[in-house]
Amino acid sequence: MSDRIERLRASLEEPLLVTNPVNVLYLTGFESSNAALLVEPERVRLFTDFRYIEAADAVEGVEAVQAKRSLIGWLAEELEGRVGFEANVLPWSLAEELRSGGAELVPRKGLVERLRAVKDDGELAAFRRACAVTDRMFERLVAEVPFVGRPERDIAWEISRLFHEEGAEELSFESIVGSGPTGARPHARAGDRVIAAGELVVIDTGCRVDGYVSDYTRTLATGELDDEMQEAYGVVLAAQQAGLDAIRAGVKGADVDAAARRVIDESPFAGTFGHGLGHGLGLDVHESPRLSTESRDTLAAGNLVTVEPGVYIAGRFGIRIEDDVVVTDGGLDNPVQFTKELLTVS
Amino acid sequence: MSDRIERLRASLEEPLLVTNPVNVLYLTGFESSNAALLVEPERVRLFTDFRYIEAADAVEGVEAVQAKRSLIGWLAEELEGRVGFEANVLPWSLAEELRSGGAELVPRKGLVERLRAVKDDGELAAFRRACAVTDRMFERLVAEVPFVGRPERDIAWEISRLFHEEGAEELSFESIVGSGPTGARPHARAGDRVIAAGELVVIDTGCRVDGYVSDYTRTLATGELDDEMQEAYGVVLAAQQAGLDAIRAGVKGADVDAAARRVIDESPFAGTFGHGLGHGLGLDVHESPRLSTESRDTLAAGNLVTVEPGVYIAGRFGIRIEDDVVVTDGGLDNPVQFTKELLTVS
Repeated sequence: MSDRIERLRASLEEPLLVTNPVNVLYLTGFESSNAALLVEPERVRLFTDFRYIEAADAVEGVEAVQAKRSLIGWLAEELEGRVGFEANVLPWSLAEELRSGGAELVPRKGLVERLRAVKDDGELAAFRRACAVTDRMFERLVAEVPFVGRPERDIAWEISRLFHEEGAEELSFESIVGSGPTGARPHARAGDRVIAAGELVVIDTGCRVDGYVSDYTRTLATGELDDEMQEAYGVVLAAQQAGLDAIRAGVKGADVDAAARRVIDESPFAGTFGHGLGHGLGLDVHESPRLSTESRDTLAAGNLVTVEPGVYIAGRFGIRIEDDVVVTDGGLDNPVQFTKELLTVS
Repeated sequence: MSDRIERLRASLEEPLLVTNPVNVLYLTGFESSNAALLVEPERVRLFTDFRYIEAADAVEGVEAVQAKRSLIGWLAEELEGRVGFEANVLPWSLAEELRSGGAELVPRKGLVERLRAVKDDGELAAFRRACAVTDRMFERLVAEVPFVGRPERDIAWEISRLFHEEGAEELSFESIVGSGPTGARPHARAGDRVIAAGELVVIDTGCRVDGYVSDYTRTLATGELDDEMQEAYGVVLAAQQAGLDAIRAGVKGADVDAAARRVIDESPFAGTFGHGLGHGLGLDVHESPRLSTESRDTLAAGNLVTVEPGVYIAGRFGIRIEDDVVVTDGGLDNPVQFTKELLTVS
């Protein structure tokens, strides 16, 4: 862990107060909903309350300090000199509370997140384990689980059960199971709608293994599809391949998005892909870098990103196909094994 | 829903931009990770991006407006005049981004949260359904599930399974299963530690039904306990009863905490109850009001609070007992049915 703190230190213009719990976890291995890490040139202090102090004492390379439960108010009185704070995370009123103390607070954005965007070998190994579990979950889902006649919510539960049986710590997020018209709402959760035959079902799910998450989407058929659905599936698959082909270190996230988007926009489904192509993932499901029209990120080797184009026809159906890939100097490494061919379940 | 918006409006000195997703859900029934609600005297606008706009259009009594995915930057250009923002929620840098536009932004704290603290009949009915499911889960857990010789993580999974079978939408939070010394760390999750005979096991869990959460803790024995553990259990139970007895509308949260804390501090376990007595719950697991030494809240009829004292002996064991109760003018209504007697599981 201390290697990460050293790299953070090298990027700092003044001591940094880290309050994002996931950033604290990344830097120290310490998990708590109420902690702050102060990284100074000569020492690192980990502030937390009674509930977590026993665990904090066990963290190597930091000085654990028991603070009040109202951590920010307590820190306002403790901090001195120039101190950076995580302005993209800390709520406005807590930042103002910090500023009311004796220290000179400097807003900083995304310093730890920038480190987190480039994964090391240990992180990638955990991620690959999450992918292996997710592959097995999907293999069993299509082989063992009946879809037609059951509410989406039941399929979401089967996914939870299979993930547990295959060794996942937890789901990355609540599974999306969007059947028929529900699939046209890209972020609808699994609901009470009963899945019918001859539909498309968007399944967006993932799991956490050793702290790191996977995030896959596959769209399954429940019987014979009409021509438009079949054509749309081919377009999304081609768009995803175009996105994957565009990825390598040094390429702009916006350009990768454009490569995939062009395939959809030159098809009969132009304009129906209304979200970004992908996002980083790791300890969180949404990290840097972004692949989207608005992204200003440039890809670097060691980035871990989703590639997930979609076509959404309101009131009728949605299709999305998503892999998670590691950016390399020469292109990418795609650990996702589960097929992207259109599968039919019953 | 519009009744809630009306009550909010009555408390406003200027239009309020609501960005906390749970507050948006409370006011409109609309669920999204990227939405903002602008409550003005004459109209209510709901801003969201492409992914959620179809669902937003279906919300009654509001005008749905499709915004960019970078919602705050987009709003900075759209807003005019004096506008309040949720300063306790919005990150500092987003608040500054909003301020860079043409509007005069006024920091406001907890205006919607204050409304949410007093539950209406529909909310209480959903909460009672969550309690009924949680009662059944605990009954089955102690009757059906073997504990000794299994890792804590397995018990957490059994809890998830039982909640699902009993009709919960999802867990309120990741279950805590703290056995033996792990129980002394009040917020340790369920880990790989194998549960032994003659220990205490702290189980802190709950579920969501129709949007509303329960949050129970029971501490179970896995066989014969030593005298200290038995005595500590009695002290925690008495402290919880003292807390419950102190609750009624008009009483200060700090005084309820003190009533329970006194029982522990006058026992051989003085000083081992290192967290607050309780917290509000509802759509979120942690809401207003708070029952703690630092609380400035006064209880009102319709508040929904946990009462959860504990004793924690580092390296040895922990005990916590938690119910969820509705504050009334005359006292409280405690819908939790599952026993607080010390139960032994095998």
